[in-house]
Amino acid sequence: MKKLTYNQIAGQKPDRIEGLSDGVFSIAMTLLVLDLKVPAESVVHSEGDLLAAVCRLAPNLVSYLLGFMTLGIFWVGHTTQFTFQERSDRTYSWIQIFFLLVVGLFPFSTAFLSAHIEYRLTVGIYWFNIMLAGSALYASWHYSVRHKLLTADATPAIIKAIFRRIVVAQLLYATGAGLCFINTYLSIGFILLVQLNYALGLTNKSA
Amino acid sequence: MKKLTYNQIAGQKPDRIEGLSDGVFSIAMTLLVLDLKVPAESVVHSEGDLLAAVCRLAPNLVSYLLGFMTLGIFWVGHTTQFTFQERSDRTYSWIQIFFLLVVGLFPFSTAFLSAHIEYRLTVGIYWFNIMLAGSALYASWHYSVRHKLLTADATPAIIKAIFRRIVVAQLLYATGAGLCFINTYLSIGFILLVQLNYALGLTNKSA
Amino acid sequence: MKKLTYNQIAGQKPDRIEGLSDGVFSIAMTLLVLDLKVPAESVVHSEGDLLAAVCRLAPNLVSYLLGFMTLGIFWVGHTTQFTFQERSDRTYSWIQIFFLLVVGLFPFSTAFLSAHIEYRLTVGIYWFNIMLAGSALYASWHYSVRHKLLTADATPAIIKAIFRRIVVAQLLYATGAGLCFINTYLSIGFILLVQLNYALGLTNKSA
Amino acid sequence: MKKLTYNQIAGQKPDRIEGLSDGVFSIAMTLLVLDLKVPAESVVHSEGDLLAAVCRLAPNLVSYLLGFMTLGIFWVGHTTQFTFQERSDRTYSWIQIFFLLVVGLFPFSTAFLSAHIEYRLTVGIYWFNIMLAGSALYASWHYSVRHKLLTADATPAIIKAIFRRIVVAQLLYATGAGLCFINTYLSIGFILLVQLNYALGLTNKSA
Repeated sequence: MKKLTYNQIAGQKPDRIEGLSDGVFSIAMTLLVLDLKVPAESVVHSEGDLLAAVCRLAPNLVSYLLGFMTLGIFWVGHTTQFTFQERSDRTYSWIQIFFLLVVGLFPFSTAFLSAHIEYRLTVGIYWFNIMLAGSALYASWHYSVRHKLLTADATPAIIKAIFRRIVVAQLLYATGAGLCFINTYLSIGFILLVQLNYALGLTNKSA
Repeated sequence: MKKLTYNQIAGQKPDRIEGLSDGVFSIAMTLLVLDLKVPAESVVHSEGDLLAAVCRLAPNLVSYLLGFMTLGIFWVGHTTQFTFQERSDRTYSWIQIFFLLVVGLFPFSTAFLSAHIEYRLTVGIYWFNIMLAGSALYASWHYSVRHKLLTADATPAIIKAIFRRIVVAQLLYATGAGLCFINTYLSIGFILLVQLNYALGLTNKSA
Repeated sequence: MKKLTYNQIAGQKPDRIEGLSDGVFSIAMTLLVLDLKVPAESVVHSEGDLLAAVCRLAPNLVSYLLGFMTLGIFWVGHTTQFTFQERSDRTYSWIQIFFLLVVGLFPFSTAFLSAHIEYRLTVGIYWFNIMLAGSALYASWHYSVRHKLLTADATPAIIKAIFRRIVVAQLLYATGAGLCFINTYLSIGFILLVQLNYALGLTNKSA
Repeated sequence: MKKLTYNQIAGQKPDRIEGLSDGVFSIAMTLLVLDLKVPAESVVHSEGDLLAAVCRLAPNLVSYLLGFMTLGIFWVGHTTQFTFQERSDRTYSWIQIFFLLVVGLFPFSTAFLSAHIEYRLTVGIYWFNIMLAGSALYASWHYSVRHKLLTADATPAIIKAIFRRIVVAQLLYATGAGLCFINTYLSIGFILLVQLNYALGLTNKSA
């Protein structure tokens, strides 16, 4: 009789992964509001002062909106996979933990973006974060398909649609990132348009 | 045969939306306690000093109470809709993400309110936040009704009651906000009374 | 036919209250670790410096332990009630929101306690927080019993045991708080012993 | 007839422990990203400045990665136990609360590690945190076995595998900690290799 090992029985609760993920996503989404500081009373003596102070918060607000959108895209992607996730195992759990590690970095990389958009390094960091998150989702889906962790509802067409979605998006993001060698604003603008497209669901409506 | 698209299978788990929402609400509710700073030991040499220091925390405490009440109102509204939510889809998920984005701003707008209540801009920001949250709830209910995402328990009377509740509340809030052209304290006082009314459930007991 | 009102259909998901509560409790529990600051590298030049710096963190560590214990006591009390909670309604939801509002203040009142234990006001604030939390749990149980929101498992003996537990604990806490007119250390010491007793479950083993 | 006591009915919902735990884990995992501060615009005037500023964040990034890995190891261990957890009681709930208290300290001890790795006290604190977390998991499993809180799926082989996993890991960690009397880098290096081994699941693949 083979000895039972810990690794054979570890990490088998997909609902726990969902619980942990919703926790990490909701914290990451909410953290950025901490950067929206209420203007100090000492610098405000009129409606005009207050308006000026509020306008100075614009970059933080943009970064809040950006962060929510980026996290929203990956959260929807994550829930879509879990619609078909029947089982989990130890390795799958760790792919998911790596995914959450990357998700937890988005508040940093989006704040970075809104502060230093004129530098190519900024584009690189933002794209790298998106690329890692996409890769983790790809790896987790690939692992699930290969190790039969999915429900019977996951038809070949569904499996393929999820792979295609990740690959196409990542190719578009990489193209956008490459544009930073021409101009960083162009590059980020392109990436944001791709993100907006996915958030609003403009394409693929009837593809 | 039509090709299956990612958008057709994305965002179909309403329980995940509930998990993410409870996360965002609980963080937003708890964040404001961070503004309640324990008085430094260096400034406290007697019971009187301590009492004075505690009294200086009053605005932060008010903003904590306000924030909890506002978030509580929208959380109850959200759970009420989800009592009847059977399914979800991609667009619905994004309406909900937008709702959470707005909910995450309440710690900011209520702290802003308790710091700058004498300015009309403050009333405008606070009302705008409430209005966006109400609009998102309205949109999400409207979408659910139209795309048949609700359970069979959602009778026409229930559907109508939820729409009516949002519209009446928003009309009252807008009226309150309009009062800021007379006086900002009057305006906020009116809005808070409307909120208290909903929190305590004073009206509609037997309407 | 009576018109259906919003209040009749609002707040009917006890599982959402549990989700929100676990969120608020976990955040309140974890927030206090933020006060444990890693000693700056500039002030540490030897093992001795580091040990001294770590010792200066003792009050923050005590407040972390205290906060966890206090929150743990009320969390266990909350889960115990929800073992028998079958339904929820609008008013019940708001009693629970008030409970969470009070729970969210524990990080503040316990940090206050560890900073200003020599003042009677400190004892008063700490006791007031505990008293409000106990009252909210009492009110929520009372409301559930009266409006038949409990499962059939909630026998009269169970209903009575939960009421008795809250009343006895609150009487002991009030006694402890009263001792502050003799000495604040005595007062807090008494309250902590009562809390430790509940955390360790020393009494009532076979009552 | 024996009087029913509160302790007999308290803490009987294992799903609530899972909810609270996922909350604490996700917050602890995400908190460390707050130490990754976006470089101020005032110190950045070129790509070179920005790159230098990013490089100065390396220790915080290492501590983020470390913290995620450590928390991931204990989270997987926790979920593994809960795969077989059928019931809960008051004492079990408190063992779990103690476990979460220790888990909440990891952001502190890992940040401490990345700031003061050259001191033996640092190794001691980090190891002590790991040791307490392992002990709490051991105690919770031991209590569950003894008080028959597990599902019928928990065969003797599974029970033994979980005990063995904790004991072997803790022996390895203790060995690593002991190496600090030779050299602290050697000591931490050894502990990290043990952790990496568990995260990547290198051993026990077919033991």
